Amino acid sequence: MKATVYHGTRDVRVETVPDPSILAPTDAIVRVTRAAICGSDLWFYRGITPWEPGERTGHEFVGVIEAIGSDVRSLKIGDAVIAPFAISDGTCEFCHLGLQTSCLHGDFWGSEKNGGQAEMVRVPYADGTLVKMSDVMAHDDAMLAHAATLSDVMGTGHHGAVTAGTKRGGTVVVIGDGAVGLCAVHSAAKLLDAEHIIAVGHNAHRLELAREFGATTILNSHDDGVAETILELTKGGSPSVVEAVGNQESLDLAVAVARPGGTLTFVGVPHNVEKPDLRGIFLKNVSLRGGLAPVRAYLEDLIAATSAKRITPGRVFDLELAINDTPKGYAAMDERRAIKVLLRPN
Amino acid sequence: MKATVYHGTRDVRVETVPDPSILAPTDAIVRVTRAAICGSDLWFYRGITPWEPGERTGHEFVGVIEAIGSDVRSLKIGDAVIAPFAISDGTCEFCHLGLQTSCLHGDFWGSEKNGGQAEMVRVPYADGTLVKMSDVMAHDDAMLAHAATLSDVMGTGHHGAVTAGTKRGGTVVVIGDGAVGLCAVHSAAKLLDAEHIIAVGHNAHRLELAREFGATTILNSHDDGVAETILELTKGGSPSVVEAVGNQESLDLAVAVARPGGTLTFVGVPHNVEKPDLRGIFLKNVSLRGGLAPVRAYLEDLIAATSAKRITPGRVFDLELAINDTPKGYAAMDERRAIKVLLRPN
Repeated sequence: MKATVYHGTRDVRVETVPDPSILAPTDAIVRVTRAAICGSDLWFYRGITPWEPGERTGHEFVGVIEAIGSDVRSLKIGDAVIAPFAISDGTCEFCHLGLQTSCLHGDFWGSEKNGGQAEMVRVPYADGTLVKMSDVMAHDDAMLAHAATLSDVMGTGHHGAVTAGTKRGGTVVVIGDGAVGLCAVHSAAKLLDAEHIIAVGHNAHRLELAREFGATTILNSHDDGVAETILELTKGGSPSVVEAVGNQESLDLAVAVARPGGTLTFVGVPHNVEKPDLRGIFLKNVSLRGGLAPVRAYLEDLIAATSAKRITPGRVFDLELAINDTPKGYAAMDERRAIKVLLRPN
Repeated sequence: MKATVYHGTRDVRVETVPDPSILAPTDAIVRVTRAAICGSDLWFYRGITPWEPGERTGHEFVGVIEAIGSDVRSLKIGDAVIAPFAISDGTCEFCHLGLQTSCLHGDFWGSEKNGGQAEMVRVPYADGTLVKMSDVMAHDDAMLAHAATLSDVMGTGHHGAVTAGTKRGGTVVVIGDGAVGLCAVHSAAKLLDAEHIIAVGHNAHRLELAREFGATTILNSHDDGVAETILELTKGGSPSVVEAVGNQESLDLAVAVARPGGTLTFVGVPHNVEKPDLRGIFLKNVSLRGGLAPVRAYLEDLIAATSAKRITPGRVFDLELAINDTPKGYAAMDERRAIKVLLRPN
């Protein structure tokens, strides 16, 4: 099969590799119908975080079950499924708590020569990890794009909005106009029924999509006095803030606009953050929540909402390529020519 | 009257100053019956945080109402009262939320030549700020010592234990064996009914008091592998952690021993924290809560618990001095000869 292999900074290649096979009785083999490139893939692509040369890439994919191990109970060959970005056994304490990213037997794609930007993937703990799509989702091009966002970005944005305590009729500030920020806006507007959704970014095209996703105010982070504007609009700060950039400037803005007693969730691995404003967090009794999203916990709800067309998160994809062209997709995202790339079978 | 005045690093002096007078109709004048020196007073005493020469010191005091302004409704001359370390109007949005440290008209002692380490204090927004003691508290030496801790350290420790989500029958780790850490242990044991209370410090005498306050395990932070020991004892981390030191090492330990999905409250102004472990907070979905304690919100409950002898927080005082000797008290705490100093009228 074809799979994307990391070779070094800005060097990923699609290569012919052995087809995966069942290694444990709880495994399934999934034939990928859609995969995606994540903003977080750019960290290793750019050489900022380590990645092992020879290892596979990709943690966002959906597909059809091609084979199952003898212990797989809830899935059968031919089922259309969504894979979250984290592998989880579905049985441990943390899985039961809905915190599958802390699964005691969990793992992440990309290790053991097993990644999602490929024609097939071996899925450990298939019963715990995979969730079946709805029928309406499995056979429709637009729906498959939506489904692919449920692997990560839509689940991550939703986790951010949920854990920041976004209330029905309430106010939330979302900092970042990448795919995750846009999905947080979408969740706040369409799933959590917030009334005031302030989206902060610096790309006019993306901010327009934020508006279409449900933002009630869009602000350019490069304008002077953005923090003051938000403090005015919210009469003293927002009870809920989602930080979806992960750098010093955005985290500082997030703390500055958090209301006393409010919650600020950061949903990306923090990079380039030298010193968060702990004093501000202290003085205002703010909760700073880390948010590696347990996407698996939300999948059933998000599949239902997508199938009912309450959300259309697949609109974050603005470039579609065949898996053979994955390297072009990385380059397009690296050069900010695309928000997010959808990959289709060759 | 006598009052303590800051002159410079390690230079506070008790001086004769004009008696305070009512400046606003919502003011009260309190004659101090007990005051205290706080660990946080050492920050300016040591020259680490700025303090204006000529300004007063002290934010922990209890006393008797000597005069009231024409708009004071809930207090009368002769009432014995406790002053929290923050002034609050009692009427704004944040006061109603129980977040009086964010009061829109609030302030802190020490500015406008008005501090608690004195014979008398002018209390702005007396109806909002002050709370009457119980009768049993007002006329008993030991009770007055307990009462003096309710101004800050007992309320702060309690806020830490509460906001870290300490559960009845649950587990909490308290890092720090200063007065606030000890009070957090006491709150967890006697007010919140936690079952496993792990106290971490490095002073044998203080850790012994932690044990008497209700800690079920005491650990020396200087021993090797404290984090590993706690992870073993808690089978993977504590759902609740109170960080009551405020430096890099203690915050790192707090993040390391937090359970996935758990809450870590830091109850002191962070000093010497270069870089909190945001990656650990992210990966484990930990909530890092800032905890400038709205002591006012807890005062009625803490007065009741103290009066009923459920808690005996005044035991954190291990040195008593007259207000004239306040400078000796600062020196004793600075040189770690005392945990905490109680000040009595001359």
